[in-house]
Amino acid sequence: MLITSSIIQQLQQIVGENYVFTDEATRRDYGHDETEDYNFPPGVVVKPATTEEVSQIMSLANQNYIAVVPIGGRTGLSGGALSLLEGIGLSMERMNKILEIDEQNLQVRTQPGVITQVLREAVAEKGLFYPVDPSSMGSCFIGGNIAENSGGARAVKYGVTKDYVLNLEVVLPNGQIIWTGANTLKNSTGYNLTQLMVGSEGTLGVVTQAVLKLLPKNDHNLLLLVPFYKASQACEAVSAIFRAGIVPSALEFMERDAIDWTLQFVSGINVTVKPEHQAHLLIEVDGNYPEILMLEAEKIMEVVEQFEIDEVLFADTEDQKNALWKLRRSVAEAVKANSVYKEEDTVVPRYELPKLLEGIKAIGKKYGFQSVCYGHAGDGNLHVNIIKGTMSDANWKKEVPKGIQEIFELTVSLKGTLSGEHGIGYVQKNFMDIAFSKPHLELMEQIKYIFDPNNIMNPGKILPDRD
Amino acid sequence: MLITSSIIQQLQQIVGENYVFTDEATRRDYGHDETEDYNFPPGVVVKPATTEEVSQIMSLANQNYIAVVPIGGRTGLSGGALSLLEGIGLSMERMNKILEIDEQNLQVRTQPGVITQVLREAVAEKGLFYPVDPSSMGSCFIGGNIAENSGGARAVKYGVTKDYVLNLEVVLPNGQIIWTGANTLKNSTGYNLTQLMVGSEGTLGVVTQAVLKLLPKNDHNLLLLVPFYKASQACEAVSAIFRAGIVPSALEFMERDAIDWTLQFVSGINVTVKPEHQAHLLIEVDGNYPEILMLEAEKIMEVVEQFEIDEVLFADTEDQKNALWKLRRSVAEAVKANSVYKEEDTVVPRYELPKLLEGIKAIGKKYGFQSVCYGHAGDGNLHVNIIKGTMSDANWKKEVPKGIQEIFELTVSLKGTLSGEHGIGYVQKNFMDIAFSKPHLELMEQIKYIFDPNNIMNPGKILPDRD
Repeated sequence: MLITSSIIQQLQQIVGENYVFTDEATRRDYGHDETEDYNFPPGVVVKPATTEEVSQIMSLANQNYIAVVPIGGRTGLSGGALSLLEGIGLSMERMNKILEIDEQNLQVRTQPGVITQVLREAVAEKGLFYPVDPSSMGSCFIGGNIAENSGGARAVKYGVTKDYVLNLEVVLPNGQIIWTGANTLKNSTGYNLTQLMVGSEGTLGVVTQAVLKLLPKNDHNLLLLVPFYKASQACEAVSAIFRAGIVPSALEFMERDAIDWTLQFVSGINVTVKPEHQAHLLIEVDGNYPEILMLEAEKIMEVVEQFEIDEVLFADTEDQKNALWKLRRSVAEAVKANSVYKEEDTVVPRYELPKLLEGIKAIGKKYGFQSVCYGHAGDGNLHVNIIKGTMSDANWKKEVPKGIQEIFELTVSLKGTLSGEHGIGYVQKNFMDIAFSKPHLELMEQIKYIFDPNNIMNPGKILPDRD
Repeated sequence: MLITSSIIQQLQQIVGENYVFTDEATRRDYGHDETEDYNFPPGVVVKPATTEEVSQIMSLANQNYIAVVPIGGRTGLSGGALSLLEGIGLSMERMNKILEIDEQNLQVRTQPGVITQVLREAVAEKGLFYPVDPSSMGSCFIGGNIAENSGGARAVKYGVTKDYVLNLEVVLPNGQIIWTGANTLKNSTGYNLTQLMVGSEGTLGVVTQAVLKLLPKNDHNLLLLVPFYKASQACEAVSAIFRAGIVPSALEFMERDAIDWTLQFVSGINVTVKPEHQAHLLIEVDGNYPEILMLEAEKIMEVVEQFEIDEVLFADTEDQKNALWKLRRSVAEAVKANSVYKEEDTVVPRYELPKLLEGIKAIGKKYGFQSVCYGHAGDGNLHVNIIKGTMSDANWKKEVPKGIQEIFELTVSLKGTLSGEHGIGYVQKNFMDIAFSKPHLELMEQIKYIFDPNNIMNPGKILPDRD
């Protein structure tokens, strides 16, 4: 249903006139995330401040069959925040308070609109550690991280968002409010609705509070940049490091092109690399004891020296470390600046990475596209940026989807799946049948239905279109 | 529906005559787990060997509205394996093969009938580590651990079963077979059916294969037994240890009575404790570097010395360590040998432990029962054994449930919940409304319905009886 003036009035009564926006500029602004160049503006942008307001908005929407899309930091890469049916764009930005840092229990209770980096810094001040660090952590919201089950560079040692979510306050599509679990580290009490909610991309309800687990902070780390002459060997080294008994706190892979483009398109990164290096691994170890980190770095050196590598760069100053992390975190931005592109978030068991990389290149050759690959190799999570470059619009539309289909078929054949940390959202939903059988997809559809029988919560996401 | 001779014949055709049992002795034997003294024998015990056989059994049962209860090692403590409606007792004991230890990806693919300790030892031989260690690990099955989301002493550092389950092969109640996820460390691809299945206590489907994450093995640990003059101070010390930046690999609490009873009823435990100690903490740290463990043990000493403690026992030989662990793991057995009892599996944020313990004792006084408390204090998971002792049968039946109700109300008021690692099963289901609101329970009922519309999968478990 369209947004009538009566609906607008009721929304204004709920959140106040200042927090309901119907002007085109605002709607366009809330009509996109970081997914390609899509823009699907909501019919109205609403900015609630409390759980009660969210509940009233959902009741109103549910009674009137109006689509609602929860909107976070708009950094998503699968189009989860796009308002495909116009409707209400529910920006969570005013619900941005950290409600309680519980130093006794190592937990934080937070609203969803808190920026991930802000939360990380606030708990760090108390000597605590929230490890999840998506590349977008300077602007993404905790709520968005929960919706997409976001990862990041430290996931290889510390896990992803789901591993830190203990309990969620959720407004259901009909306006009812539940807490999904308890504030405990262990819980065997009924079906795990907490984990059903994590990664559900705003299609089952609106998260209005989260209780997250924290760790004691550790203060030391070492960072190594290892240049490989062969990209396949860089991939092989990844699994060899774990087999040597090391669990690095980050293990990132960057193809030649990823680094070149980044150094070219992002200024102020003070790193030199040689043209003959086909790939780099960025490897971090962390912990409480510097002398142990040195031992672990030595073990890592023993492993990587079994491959054809050039001189390893040990970053031992904060400046050097920041430069290397800036390089890694800027790759996506650089690709974006350079060309129209599509990003796939493939994930496989980590030992299968060389096969995945090789396969992607072969598929690119077959369909005529170039790809730039980089990502969280320690998790087997490879971001594949398919570059339009000089490809014709016709081929971009016709050939590339066939290539993506084959890439996903490859990941699934390697016991992997479609998305490691970006979610399915809008752009990957019609590939879901590669990963899931019909009965499996039907179960997901039925789960969606019991939460949201009127299909108002972020419709058109995750589940494939009906034939 | 009752088990007719035609059903028996069809079951015999599926699994072979040797694996269908209708004699009373076998049925009684498969009619219990370790939950109090309940016995609900299945109408027939069936022992399939393959996923295909399980699928055929489920199809047959579904078409004929016959209840099916998956049965593992029968060590459960919430009555999950009881065949309340007779029906088919589906023993998974023949599906006991470890199918693949993947040393490249640090994963194991296993059938559900493998004993947890057998799996732990098999992967340890390859230098790998499966950390989940329920007290019953010498006889419980991996499949049962998945059904109940089992924990154990090492959960405080390493997490519980759910943290290791990457992917599950599940036979749905209608006989369809799905894999719930992918063999990857990260996954943001649709609703998380893997975690919906973990902890669902055999009510949504039958797990026939599991892919579990492994860690590199570490070879060193230190074990300390700390005697406290006051039980409340032992509880307070738990949270203080974490706040000092230590994450122990085990942090177990034992009340005075728990130790006394164990030393009295279980032979061959070579540990001496003094009568004036009201509680003990058993604290383990583990890792790759003995010198670091010594540093951590010193830090722990600094923390516990702030409380009223007696001399700490450092276990530095394997014999001493084994004796202490035998003491801890034998508490449940000792309580069982001593009296009729009911065991509750309370869990709260760990800093709330002193309040929980104090509250339980006050509730016991009010309703006239004694309790013996012990458990995984590092996780806030306290096992409460309510002892019948000399209590009259009438009071046991009438007063104790009121006390349990109050204990659960207390855990929930402390932001905890009903079960940390034993599950809800049969014995706790009618307390579920303490933890969950009506709309929340209805969502669980609907989830149950979409998986199992005929209500044949382990009926009468988890969800409260209808009024």
